[in-house]
Amino acid sequence: MKIHLHQTNFTIADFDSARDYLFKIFEEKKEGLHLFPEMFLTGYPLQDICLHKQFIDRYLETVSEINKFLKKRKEKGITCLIGGLDYTMDQEGLPLQIRNVAFKAEAGSELRPIYTKRLLPNYDIFDEEKYYHPGDECAIEKINGKNIAIMICEDMWPSSMHPIDPGLDLKIYAEKKNIKVDLVVNLSASPWHIGKDQKRIKRGSEISKLLHAPFIYVNKVGGEDEILFDGGSFVVAGDNVIDGLKRFAPDYKEIEIPLFSEEKAKSNKPYEMTNTWESLFKAELKPGTPPTLNEWTDKECEEALLALRFGIQEYAKKCGFKKFLVALSGGMDSALVLTIVRIILEEGQEVEAIYMPGLYSATMSYELSFELCKNLGIRLTSLPIKFFHSAIRNSYKENFKESMEGLADENIQSRMRGALLYAHSNQKNSMVLNTSNKSEIAVGYSTLYGDSVGAISVLGDIYKSNVFTLAKYINKKFENIIPEGIITRPPSAELREGQEDSQSLPPYERLDAMLEGMLSYRLSTKDLIEKGFSEEEVNKVYGLYTRSEFKRFQFCPIIKLNAKSFGFGYRVPICKKRY
Amino acid sequence: MKIHLHQTNFTIADFDSARDYLFKIFEEKKEGLHLFPEMFLTGYPLQDICLHKQFIDRYLETVSEINKFLKKRKEKGITCLIGGLDYTMDQEGLPLQIRNVAFKAEAGSELRPIYTKRLLPNYDIFDEEKYYHPGDECAIEKINGKNIAIMICEDMWPSSMHPIDPGLDLKIYAEKKNIKVDLVVNLSASPWHIGKDQKRIKRGSEISKLLHAPFIYVNKVGGEDEILFDGGSFVVAGDNVIDGLKRFAPDYKEIEIPLFSEEKAKSNKPYEMTNTWESLFKAELKPGTPPTLNEWTDKECEEALLALRFGIQEYAKKCGFKKFLVALSGGMDSALVLTIVRIILEEGQEVEAIYMPGLYSATMSYELSFELCKNLGIRLTSLPIKFFHSAIRNSYKENFKESMEGLADENIQSRMRGALLYAHSNQKNSMVLNTSNKSEIAVGYSTLYGDSVGAISVLGDIYKSNVFTLAKYINKKFENIIPEGIITRPPSAELREGQEDSQSLPPYERLDAMLEGMLSYRLSTKDLIEKGFSEEEVNKVYGLYTRSEFKRFQFCPIIKLNAKSFGFGYRVPICKKRY
Repeated sequence: MKIHLHQTNFTIADFDSARDYLFKIFEEKKEGLHLFPEMFLTGYPLQDICLHKQFIDRYLETVSEINKFLKKRKEKGITCLIGGLDYTMDQEGLPLQIRNVAFKAEAGSELRPIYTKRLLPNYDIFDEEKYYHPGDECAIEKINGKNIAIMICEDMWPSSMHPIDPGLDLKIYAEKKNIKVDLVVNLSASPWHIGKDQKRIKRGSEISKLLHAPFIYVNKVGGEDEILFDGGSFVVAGDNVIDGLKRFAPDYKEIEIPLFSEEKAKSNKPYEMTNTWESLFKAELKPGTPPTLNEWTDKECEEALLALRFGIQEYAKKCGFKKFLVALSGGMDSALVLTIVRIILEEGQEVEAIYMPGLYSATMSYELSFELCKNLGIRLTSLPIKFFHSAIRNSYKENFKESMEGLADENIQSRMRGALLYAHSNQKNSMVLNTSNKSEIAVGYSTLYGDSVGAISVLGDIYKSNVFTLAKYINKKFENIIPEGIITRPPSAELREGQEDSQSLPPYERLDAMLEGMLSYRLSTKDLIEKGFSEEEVNKVYGLYTRSEFKRFQFCPIIKLNAKSFGFGYRVPICKKRY
Repeated sequence: MKIHLHQTNFTIADFDSARDYLFKIFEEKKEGLHLFPEMFLTGYPLQDICLHKQFIDRYLETVSEINKFLKKRKEKGITCLIGGLDYTMDQEGLPLQIRNVAFKAEAGSELRPIYTKRLLPNYDIFDEEKYYHPGDECAIEKINGKNIAIMICEDMWPSSMHPIDPGLDLKIYAEKKNIKVDLVVNLSASPWHIGKDQKRIKRGSEISKLLHAPFIYVNKVGGEDEILFDGGSFVVAGDNVIDGLKRFAPDYKEIEIPLFSEEKAKSNKPYEMTNTWESLFKAELKPGTPPTLNEWTDKECEEALLALRFGIQEYAKKCGFKKFLVALSGGMDSALVLTIVRIILEEGQEVEAIYMPGLYSATMSYELSFELCKNLGIRLTSLPIKFFHSAIRNSYKENFKESMEGLADENIQSRMRGALLYAHSNQKNSMVLNTSNKSEIAVGYSTLYGDSVGAISVLGDIYKSNVFTLAKYINKKFENIIPEGIITRPPSAELREGQEDSQSLPPYERLDAMLEGMLSYRLSTKDLIEKGFSEEEVNKVYGLYTRSEFKRFQFCPIIKLNAKSFGFGYRVPICKKRY
């Protein structure tokens, strides 16, 4: 039997495209078993919109169009397993129960839900128990004479937080019914983070060995605001990785049903959990006194670049932007963002840079920005804010009868820049890329409505230490495209005379390790002190972190690269006791 | 037996204050049964911080201090039922399971969890299934010879989304064990919205009649970012409301154990659901063709004022602000916000107003702002942006070789105001109150980083029609303190010559009704057209709504007044197909 892997990328709620894609399979008479991602018909993650009447109306219309189509078709030998939602309505036509299911689509009959997802992830960025009702049965479907065991995404990840293990249940069920499983398929919409794709393959192999059958994993592709779905569908039989699809791109493959070699299936260790709730929130620290952050390897840098390319492009395309806009400061973060955007630029897209020097901007900041833009072949426009800043100072003094001082005088510069940047963005309909890094966001070392602005944050899930690592990696790969001076100069916000980050923050080496410990949930301030950080520094960093929640609350979406990141999976109250 | 109702308000994670409050009860030898709110020891809602090692360390320390204290005490006849969390840890000292429990505290023994909350709300603003493990048993505790049945918050609200009904279970359990229930207590942390307090009492009465025992409800008080807990604890026996505690303020009462009159308990209708998932998302529309929004009654206006006072004050106090700052435009929204702040001002607090006229600000805008501030006795400072605006236009033209136009030229004015407002806020350490209303937020009729800025939004859960209703109510109550001209002039953003809201939006009367229909989840565009709205207007409004998700994503916390509001309980992806 032929198996078709459809690794698709459709915008959330783009019902027409999903429907037409499905119709084509029958129109082109492609025989075999067609596998689609989880919630192919609707998109994922839907959050609240799966409850909206507007969404439900359009979705049910599509389902009924598909049913009408299928009933008229005559093609034999085409079976599609499609992820979608199965609604049960109340008398008022509102959802009483929603199931995340695999539909079977064949010519001559309507869509039939044959399996309901059993494990609903409900941690970090996941809220599936909020919306969906779990299934309580295994499904082994006979298709073309073959026994196909079905799973949906999380079903392959049993853990201490889930009461059941659908893989093991499938084994017991098959044995009881005396069914020889020929193939296990998993329809997925699995968010990516660095390293996760490898864990999936490892786990797929374990399930293959458990059920003595090949395992096919079909994952969706898509950048959904901050969350990336990398595709990377694969086929394993025991320890053999037989096939793999593209990463971060739609793909399609037709394969023969793979064989499972019983001989090789001897070292059976199927219950090693590799990616559970428990392992998700593990601080990525390198032992030492004090420990340091794990710096990214070249491979991780490459992976991050791939993901950032995808995340930026997906947001731009799904929101209809063809132009990008970056504010350069002469510092590391904005230089890296601009370089990344330049590297990933596609035909028909443009990127512009603005440099907005203030009273405290060093000449070097302009020179380095200019040099960078020359290297990248990007037009740089200067829009000095010195004059506006002075004018505001004067007007403030005149009207309030006192001088603008300290933080007020520092922040107004950053906010002027935010306003001017967005004026140009409005004028050109370009997408502003935020340039804050994870360390800054964690300690609130940024100005709300100032340098924190943007449509999406590129570096918001990268600690400053790894911002440098990634810059150096890019320079290795692209012949020192980022001027060395940008990488080596001491970080500064240039909002007052002689300001340097090191006046307000511990060195990034220590800061980042402390932050990772705190943000992973694993380490308390007490733990950090025990690990060799100074009590003074730990308390200072914890204070900065906990007092800046209000800034993160209003932050733009951050492209998610790590298991634990700010954004949708990070929910912390603003008002709380600080200790 | 004496019953003590402790309607407390402690900041989230303020363990020391909760502990000391508890100690005092034993030190003052207050005999009887002491009832505390749900999660009294920790605060609520905790969101992710209940998983943070930092939080857990401090909480467990507090629990062990309390245990040490209790074991040493000798007072007889004091029993406390306290809401708190019961952690089960894994080998690494991280939470394996967290239970939302009622602890029993008595002299001579440690805190003992005697009941675990059974129904975990997991809709809208609630994510309890994400964090907590549900209980599966009833608890009827013998205290001082009386049988006390225990519930925690949601346990009293069975619905089609919950598989069980703890009230009914209690009845069955009591009958099976042949226990006569003497009292039902509910320890609550129940977020408020307009009208909910009345529903609670009605439901409490139903449970009292079901179990043939008085029902005591102890609710927490607190403004937790956008969510308000109103207290309003009460005692009912059958249809009799015996006692009630303050609303939106901490309170304490000592009462005798109430009696339940068997005679009166005849008309037994305990299973009318009054406040379920199903009723929560009901559009508040008044029938008509097309329907209109339900305008607030005087009682609802008074209730909203009470809630806004509480929400603003709680945020200010918990974040340490003593000064408020409002940008006046001469329009209705900012005038109402300033008036509300003035009305609620407490000793030691100040409020300032800034008026920042631009090129298109009418003279009337200044005159009305001035008149309002005179009425309110508030200092108004003018900080004109005309000059900055012209300077930016010139500089933009000089550097970009083109004129700033359209949206760019409109928005820069709003963003300049945002920047200047925050400059003054930084200078004075004052809390900026956002002045956007719910209609504007819904259709994106505001400038991101411009008029959308603020620490907290006062009107963000009030449709424009009700903004007017509330203003008129205040004028009735406070002798036309808001100049009539502000209420009657046509709404305008004054960002271009002759601009009026009505050029871009349908009249608020229709707009608000359409929005409420859409946002309640209950009505699709098709439904709205069927109800008599024009197809063109409906599609326009839906388009504006769905395209402005990116603005809501970065919006400040909005004080929640309605069952369905923007904010934490509203989660919608930015990138999605628009139809």
